[in-house]
Amino acid sequence: MKKIAIAYHSGYGHTARQAEAVQQGAAAVAGVEARLYDVTQLNDAAWAELDAADAIIFGAPTYMGSASARFKEFMDASSKRWFARTWQDKLAAGFTTSASQSGDKLNTLMQLMILACQHGMIWVGLDLLPGNNSSQGSVDDLNRLGSSAGAMAQANADQGADAMLASDLKTAARLGERVAEQLLRLRP
Amino acid sequence: MKKIAIAYHSGYGHTARQAEAVQQGAAAVAGVEARLYDVTQLNDAAWAELDAADAIIFGAPTYMGSASARFKEFMDASSKRWFARTWQDKLAAGFTTSASQSGDKLNTLMQLMILACQHGMIWVGLDLLPGNNSSQGSVDDLNRLGSSAGAMAQANADQGADAMLASDLKTAARLGERVAEQLLRLRP
Amino acid sequence: MKKIAIAYHSGYGHTARQAEAVQQGAAAVAGVEARLYDVTQLNDAAWAELDAADAIIFGAPTYMGSASARFKEFMDASSKRWFARTWQDKLAAGFTTSASQSGDKLNTLMQLMILACQHGMIWVGLDLLPGNNSSQGSVDDLNRLGSSAGAMAQANADQGADAMLASDLKTAARLGERVAEQLLRLRP
Amino acid sequence: MKKIAIAYHSGYGHTARQAEAVQQGAAAVAGVEARLYDVTQLNDAAWAELDAADAIIFGAPTYMGSASARFKEFMDASSKRWFARTWQDKLAAGFTTSASQSGDKLNTLMQLMILACQHGMIWVGLDLLPGNNSSQGSVDDLNRLGSSAGAMAQANADQGADAMLASDLKTAARLGERVAEQLLRLRP
Repeated sequence: MKKIAIAYHSGYGHTARQAEAVQQGAAAVAGVEARLYDVTQLNDAAWAELDAADAIIFGAPTYMGSASARFKEFMDASSKRWFARTWQDKLAAGFTTSASQSGDKLNTLMQLMILACQHGMIWVGLDLLPGNNSSQGSVDDLNRLGSSAGAMAQANADQGADAMLASDLKTAARLGERVAEQLLRLRP
Repeated sequence: MKKIAIAYHSGYGHTARQAEAVQQGAAAVAGVEARLYDVTQLNDAAWAELDAADAIIFGAPTYMGSASARFKEFMDASSKRWFARTWQDKLAAGFTTSASQSGDKLNTLMQLMILACQHGMIWVGLDLLPGNNSSQGSVDDLNRLGSSAGAMAQANADQGADAMLASDLKTAARLGERVAEQLLRLRP
Repeated sequence: MKKIAIAYHSGYGHTARQAEAVQQGAAAVAGVEARLYDVTQLNDAAWAELDAADAIIFGAPTYMGSASARFKEFMDASSKRWFARTWQDKLAAGFTTSASQSGDKLNTLMQLMILACQHGMIWVGLDLLPGNNSSQGSVDDLNRLGSSAGAMAQANADQGADAMLASDLKTAARLGERVAEQLLRLRP
Repeated sequence: MKKIAIAYHSGYGHTARQAEAVQQGAAAVAGVEARLYDVTQLNDAAWAELDAADAIIFGAPTYMGSASARFKEFMDASSKRWFARTWQDKLAAGFTTSASQSGDKLNTLMQLMILACQHGMIWVGLDLLPGNNSSQGSVDDLNRLGSSAGAMAQANADQGADAMLASDLKTAARLGERVAEQLLRLRP
């Protein structure tokens, strides 16, 4: 059984919902189990589970152009693992939410990619062509925001997580599914 | 009279139209003149005009996640100016177009920011809060893509430049106007 | 009198020393005063002083490839100013320290540039050609790390801030001086 | 037999030498063959070999803060493969050279990461802790520049490729070897 850990922070519930979609997409793949970890609630047992995972998918809201401070605390706390190379060769991926359509979400995904590279992890991006980029497109398209490095979601600033678009959640689910598929490409 | 040069490349006419909007926004400010330069057509006289400008605004389509090769040729050709510090202390700004809503346009803007910093130029971003990020928002909002580092435009892959949204062109015009305003803050 | 605020976080004293060099470089320019603000110690009066400054220079150590979590808390806390456009049109600049020669310090500077752009601030990078990049070069050269977006310092992981290189501190001082000079270009 | 293609551009021979080191590191792994491709010389047969490779390692000099225009031409020309998803799920990695110690090389590596993500490729960074970052360190250390996203080399602006440091070439070789090792983790 391959194990995927989804390590996320959510300020107002949007990124948590995106994380759940990632988890469901990953867990739907036979031979893979996926579990959610709120990085503000990690005890020693949870850290040990991250260390034992075959892949870690990072998720954070984009605040002021990069990952939230609470998520950055987790990143900084991972420095012991970095030095010990504990996470080396695991697969990694990332997702982020903000209120803007584009905004600076790519900067957050790049920050997560750099984190993964520092740990010696292998980065898995999305494999979806951009949606909503033609005259026939709509906000209901998969990957409607046209991201490649990871999954993006856009949520209106005046609405709760329940108003998130199904397309963004399906895109997140595909990211989870994709990481699971890539794990199954690896020898036992 | 303060002079703004808009140095751009356009593959299919979209970035050219965005460049024209930037130019019109800049030229509408009293005391400022703004001129367009297609970087694939620069002769020595045009390079001399860039050197004499008070600000240079860079524009390129986002191809495969960064500025087009034709624009990169211009960037590389600017290395003599870099070494001689010819463009130092000029104002700089940037804009880009792609078919995706978000896509990797931010990476292009960051590439242009790095270019400007290498030249010792001073970077002026947009000053517009994100549009189309609430339940009342629409694609007609100024800065509908929520960019901060420069002006972004999104144009459907199956449509020509004539189908570009007015909101994206107004956002580009505001960037030009803003650079002009910042020039007027400087002592003569 | 133009006012420059240097808003920094330092984990082990290196970035604090770099911040002091920035402050001294800025304060040496006639007509400019420069003050240091540890972002972990900001009270309402300090925030008001940031709001009243003509320029804010941001500084943070690079931890796991981006600005420290403590600095990110400050960035996130600045979101009220972002929404109210309190810092718009101020000048901005940035600096960072890490143990690596190159490492991922550029990612931290880009993160600070994005922060500044979100606030509508105007970014001032370094104006120094790269040092230590020829057979005659040495670690004593100004801008020995070859940064353009801001000032970088490298400090050995097993040494305290007292072992920082004079060249890195002079580079930081030049950044402060440069921001001061750019402020003086502005009309009163 | 797993196949690795190293697709590079070199302006003055430095990146070519770095590419050779990557190739040698990869080819030394049993079960893997590695071949060099100068992207300015690609005919249809060469493109077909890239399409048939299990991994593509991208290499370009950093000019004005990002990959050279000649390399960008190759990136732009890969857009047909992007649309057809020809390179999807291949492994990818990257390397770059410039005269600066740090400079803006990270921006080039990020540009290559974004390219890989657009193609749906899986990114393999370096797995070396930073060298030359302690009082015992030296420029002879592996990964002396402290990169994580890929291999960096620094070459003095006034010296030819023959003066490149052995440490930078060994670091490049390790990147090639690492990509080969990661290929062998995959099921046949």
